[in-house]
Amino acid sequence: MASDFLRSGKIFDLRVPGFRAAGVSCGIKKNGRKDLAVIVSDSPARVAGVFTTNSVKAAPVLLDMKRVRKGTASGIIVNSGNANACTGREGLKNSEAMAAIAEKALGLRKGSMLVASTGVIGVPLPIKKIESGMPTVAKMIGYDGLHSAVEAMMTTDAFPKKTVGKAKIGGSGVTVAGIAKGAGMICPNMATMLAFFMTDANIKSPALSRALKAAVDRSFNSIIVDNDTSTNDTVLIFANGSDGNEIKDGTREFAAFTDLLTSLAVELSHMIVRDGEGATRFVEIEVAGAATDEDARLAARTVAESMLCKTAFFGGDPNWGRIIAAIGRSGAKMKEERTSISINGVKVASGGLDTGKEKEAARAMKTRELYVKVSLGAGKRSSRVWTSDLTYEYVKINSAYRT
Amino acid sequence: MASDFLRSGKIFDLRVPGFRAAGVSCGIKKNGRKDLAVIVSDSPARVAGVFTTNSVKAAPVLLDMKRVRKGTASGIIVNSGNANACTGREGLKNSEAMAAIAEKALGLRKGSMLVASTGVIGVPLPIKKIESGMPTVAKMIGYDGLHSAVEAMMTTDAFPKKTVGKAKIGGSGVTVAGIAKGAGMICPNMATMLAFFMTDANIKSPALSRALKAAVDRSFNSIIVDNDTSTNDTVLIFANGSDGNEIKDGTREFAAFTDLLTSLAVELSHMIVRDGEGATRFVEIEVAGAATDEDARLAARTVAESMLCKTAFFGGDPNWGRIIAAIGRSGAKMKEERTSISINGVKVASGGLDTGKEKEAARAMKTRELYVKVSLGAGKRSSRVWTSDLTYEYVKINSAYRT
Repeated sequence: MASDFLRSGKIFDLRVPGFRAAGVSCGIKKNGRKDLAVIVSDSPARVAGVFTTNSVKAAPVLLDMKRVRKGTASGIIVNSGNANACTGREGLKNSEAMAAIAEKALGLRKGSMLVASTGVIGVPLPIKKIESGMPTVAKMIGYDGLHSAVEAMMTTDAFPKKTVGKAKIGGSGVTVAGIAKGAGMICPNMATMLAFFMTDANIKSPALSRALKAAVDRSFNSIIVDNDTSTNDTVLIFANGSDGNEIKDGTREFAAFTDLLTSLAVELSHMIVRDGEGATRFVEIEVAGAATDEDARLAARTVAESMLCKTAFFGGDPNWGRIIAAIGRSGAKMKEERTSISINGVKVASGGLDTGKEKEAARAMKTRELYVKVSLGAGKRSSRVWTSDLTYEYVKINSAYRT
Repeated sequence: MASDFLRSGKIFDLRVPGFRAAGVSCGIKKNGRKDLAVIVSDSPARVAGVFTTNSVKAAPVLLDMKRVRKGTASGIIVNSGNANACTGREGLKNSEAMAAIAEKALGLRKGSMLVASTGVIGVPLPIKKIESGMPTVAKMIGYDGLHSAVEAMMTTDAFPKKTVGKAKIGGSGVTVAGIAKGAGMICPNMATMLAFFMTDANIKSPALSRALKAAVDRSFNSIIVDNDTSTNDTVLIFANGSDGNEIKDGTREFAAFTDLLTSLAVELSHMIVRDGEGATRFVEIEVAGAATDEDARLAARTVAESMLCKTAFFGGDPNWGRIIAAIGRSGAKMKEERTSISINGVKVASGGLDTGKEKEAARAMKTRELYVKVSLGAGKRSSRVWTSDLTYEYVKINSAYRT
């Protein structure tokens, strides 16, 4: 699995048969960093997508939502440095023009490319720069290009997020590669987050869509950096079908494929949390013993979104009072006297009362990973969400004039 | 009105006929500051209250909710430094004991005193200290005691919050004094916030309760510092009826009384926002042109709760993209192309598009007060909420080990 590659620190092999990619600098970012990426499939790929739930949707999201409905696409062109959001009709025209530029340069069918943009909101997209960068993309594009493509998607990201997994599914070896960006505005559902998966699996778009939705729900929709949902969130999967037998919905093969995709999506989503703007800690909130799934999720999310809890996590303070107060206001069914809380294995509250283990818990919190477990004693359902702490650096990054 | 007194910087007259008060230090706060307050009415007062909506309710809240139902009370005993929340049955016994200590020392009817506590959660209330402080309270209590009482309620508050208003209602001069505490955990509905009003008006408790609810809705329930609602929020009003004619529900006199109470509650609530933990700016968010009251409130609240908007306010960044993105995810009915946004009178977005006035807006934001006006163009309803910015200092205060 990809995590082994990551742990070993090696630059791992992101290649997926039949997919080429490139990332270049076309001058949208003032610092000269890469800001234009293209990923294409040698043959038209099946496609599925999940998009922001924000009422304010950026132009590229509106375009992709339309094009994804066709069920196939050639690939995607992505720029960073400008979100092409809140840009009106001109923005929509620019997204269409951006796709057309890639289609023309790479000899692809008209209307077959998808588009993504990330960066500042409300500023017209510098389409001329994208046009001028395209010849370099066309020259550099290759089967090992995902590494440079993901770099060209970064905004406030401190590191590129990428993973790859292989599994024997139905006798053949399926490869799935995933790349993502996103550091701030991370909240269900999705936030300023782009993630693209490429696979050689042979799976039709309705099944592909179901697999993607299941994976996103347990990964990108379960992470919270701040509580803001962006206008540009997009998760796409392209499946070019070069790997033989069809994976049909409802089969064991489909379950195996969904599991593989989910594990990669969880991995990428955790990378996004670890790279949360200004984050110094990775925090898992698990709420068990809830009456319903919805209650478990609501309680976990409210803790993960609480500024008081997040500053306490930053300070390494086992302040369970803030945690129980957040759960109390979450709307989840709970009784104080049945609620227990542990942090990194130390039970700080039992039956709603302090256990006197504050010092022990504070020692156990001297680590970059915090695991908060809450038991509500109201039922059998549970949920996990992942978040980061709220730090000086978060305030610095986001209060700097026009980040 | 009180604001005139405040502006003049004078220590103003907080006295309300028939009410005595005191604030002393009994040793709960380690720094020796005042931490025990008592307010009593010479004759049993009509009482009404509004309490936290958090499922986790502190012991004093549970006790008060029961006692307020009787419709009359002698007054209240308040401690700071310990919230007596998440303290189980012992906590409830301690709240009862605390009331009894005041009743005994001041010769009041058993069960007639209310109780409030604010401070750290999950630590047993040091009832012995309260008992030991009571003789000093009994000695010092007097008609000019509200100034010291409000000081004894402070936790992370930078300044005491107090106001007074008088109005001719039905021929006689009614006085209402209000005192409050609260700096962090400020969010509808109410947050770690205590506010007590004392009046000589002659008004029965059902009418008093209606007036209080109306006032709280437009004041304490429309402010947001962080998004956390505390376990201890309590707003109470005591009316001792020493001012002659009864103010009956539904009359012009009732409307005048409610207006007076609302204006004082708004004033206190703005003081709480200005004293928000780490706040450098006071921010009013007004959403107009909404389809419903609920939409207007939802949109305004979502902006006021957005960490990205609040850090932009701190940085003086007219980043309207974050504002429109917050409104887009709020759930309020809106169309991007109909939305306009102005900050301190400078229109930064019109019809969902940038107006090119960023620099002008940034200049206009170089002030401690920000007025954000959003028009949704979806209807005729509007709502205002007040909040503060998210600053380094907020993170510092709340990440410090056990604040």
